[in-house]
Amino acid sequence: MARQVTIGIDLGGTKVLGLAVDDEGVVLAELRVPTPGRPSPSASDGGVTDVGGPEPVIDVLAAVTRQLRDTVDTEVASVGVGAPGLVDNTGVLRFAPNLPRGSGLDIAAGLSERLGGLRTVVDNDATCATVAEWAFGAAVGVTDAVMVTLGTGIGGGIVAGGNVVRGASGFAGEIGHMVVDPTGPPCPCGKRGCWERFASGSGLGRLAREAARAGRLSEVVNLAGGDPESVRGEHVTVAATAGDPGALAVLGELGWWLALGLSNLALALDPAVMVYGGGLVGTVSLVHDKVHTAFDELLEGRPYRPEVRILAAQLGERAGAIGAALVARAGDRYRVDVA
Amino acid sequence: MARQVTIGIDLGGTKVLGLAVDDEGVVLAELRVPTPGRPSPSASDGGVTDVGGPEPVIDVLAAVTRQLRDTVDTEVASVGVGAPGLVDNTGVLRFAPNLPRGSGLDIAAGLSERLGGLRTVVDNDATCATVAEWAFGAAVGVTDAVMVTLGTGIGGGIVAGGNVVRGASGFAGEIGHMVVDPTGPPCPCGKRGCWERFASGSGLGRLAREAARAGRLSEVVNLAGGDPESVRGEHVTVAATAGDPGALAVLGELGWWLALGLSNLALALDPAVMVYGGGLVGTVSLVHDKVHTAFDELLEGRPYRPEVRILAAQLGERAGAIGAALVARAGDRYRVDVA
Repeated sequence: MARQVTIGIDLGGTKVLGLAVDDEGVVLAELRVPTPGRPSPSASDGGVTDVGGPEPVIDVLAAVTRQLRDTVDTEVASVGVGAPGLVDNTGVLRFAPNLPRGSGLDIAAGLSERLGGLRTVVDNDATCATVAEWAFGAAVGVTDAVMVTLGTGIGGGIVAGGNVVRGASGFAGEIGHMVVDPTGPPCPCGKRGCWERFASGSGLGRLAREAARAGRLSEVVNLAGGDPESVRGEHVTVAATAGDPGALAVLGELGWWLALGLSNLALALDPAVMVYGGGLVGTVSLVHDKVHTAFDELLEGRPYRPEVRILAAQLGERAGAIGAALVARAGDRYRVDVA
Repeated sequence: MARQVTIGIDLGGTKVLGLAVDDEGVVLAELRVPTPGRPSPSASDGGVTDVGGPEPVIDVLAAVTRQLRDTVDTEVASVGVGAPGLVDNTGVLRFAPNLPRGSGLDIAAGLSERLGGLRTVVDNDATCATVAEWAFGAAVGVTDAVMVTLGTGIGGGIVAGGNVVRGASGFAGEIGHMVVDPTGPPCPCGKRGCWERFASGSGLGRLAREAARAGRLSEVVNLAGGDPESVRGEHVTVAATAGDPGALAVLGELGWWLALGLSNLALALDPAVMVYGGGLVGTVSLVHDKVHTAFDELLEGRPYRPEVRILAAQLGERAGAIGAALVARAGDRYRVDVA
């Protein structure tokens, strides 16, 4: 009997990563293409390039699926897509601030139509990554876990009592905009002091420029060409990796804010494991011990609780696509049974 | 066939409320007694009165169960206890700052032993109240709900995807100590700016004294006998009920902080309904519309989401005991099937 293959696609703001995954979770083929419709300074229609068709994003998802199917030359059972933003229970991307023209896109219906009725499941990208880390990565074997994806912003996924938490509309896990400091820096969302203003990639840049202006980051400012305003998170990571105390101090600050949000979530959800992933995983790993120490200090009733394991994600940038395949394979957005 | 009766007991810091509940959720008998071991200024042993026996709290729980059983004169299937603090999966109260000598008490084993092996289930009191409101109260019919109990502090319970969330150790829902302002007022837990420093009964008193010192609460200060330091939350409630603008402004402030924590939880969990209960429910109802307006302003992506219903609890002070009976009857702490 031929093995069954599922396609999992991680739809990001800049690139689309597709995988063909077999029943055992083995990746048989991989494909990455740019996300269409990215802002382009040269476009005359307000900064968005159009690659043809009314829904170029869905066209690209269909093309990626077809090409992966042709590559593995096997029957494909279903396709799963992890999308950035609020994905509702029917697979519509309701709100996608980081995907041009993404808001309102009916990905599930559009993609299925282009693929001759192939079963198509769409879920939030961070939820997909969580499912993958729960099935094959850092959170294997527990009934209660929280994953945070640290990129430009912060995404999240929750497993509670052996079930993936989707919420009433499918919007659970929007943890980056939990307010942790109401008088803090303004957030593009309109509020002040959202968690992702502190503990994400953009948060790191902000904390670093603050420290640079105060004269506490000479090494990092040199790396950035001499101007404190040019400092980015990447410069901090480079300097911290080389052992620069100023850069490590800024990372420690980010780590404290990360621990604060994690402890808030741990109070609400009592997970056995908390996983941090996303583009910032390597950077945060540099201050992993500080994060864990701060978390233990912040967690109310800590002496009466078993240790919460805080772990770096294991599946890297493939987590979202692997999880999308798992969600599609499980056949039910509301319950994913994994080994 | 005789109907089956379950005993549900809400173990509070000052009183024990027991109910005999039948299969339909009808309350057949009610009993309330003081919690033993309350701090007493006249006691010579450091402020705690001892009513005899090494575990007077469990003795009282057993006596309440027996008396209710005798009153209804029917076979009792099981007894459920809602306890204030961290209750682990085996029914041990691990940490109970508001119950003298409560921490470490093995309530489930001790009570079952005193009752000839009767099946005994112990859970957190706010989780019990949540189960009751989900079964018979404000959150009937939804798969995703959050309840907050507003008393001296803030407790909480979570229903996600049709399941009660307990967490890895049974400690989920400790939401009162989520930090919402890291530079805020100190909390007895050792941190600063815990949510319950703002949106609970003690938070209301604190906000009111702050306003009184600033000369913004003359009506309320009069009610308190003229000294701003004597102002309590009750004074604010009385003045606000009479329409005093200063008192209503302080309640509005409490309402904003309540909305902030609720919106944080809504981002993580995407509930259809959020219920507020506990002793402060009447007070908060005075500014219900302000809470809802602030919540909508604070919820990221609000225009793309269906309305989250924010509702006052319906079962009053009996919610915890009714829920304890439901949890005991369901036979499994991890899944409670209710109509």
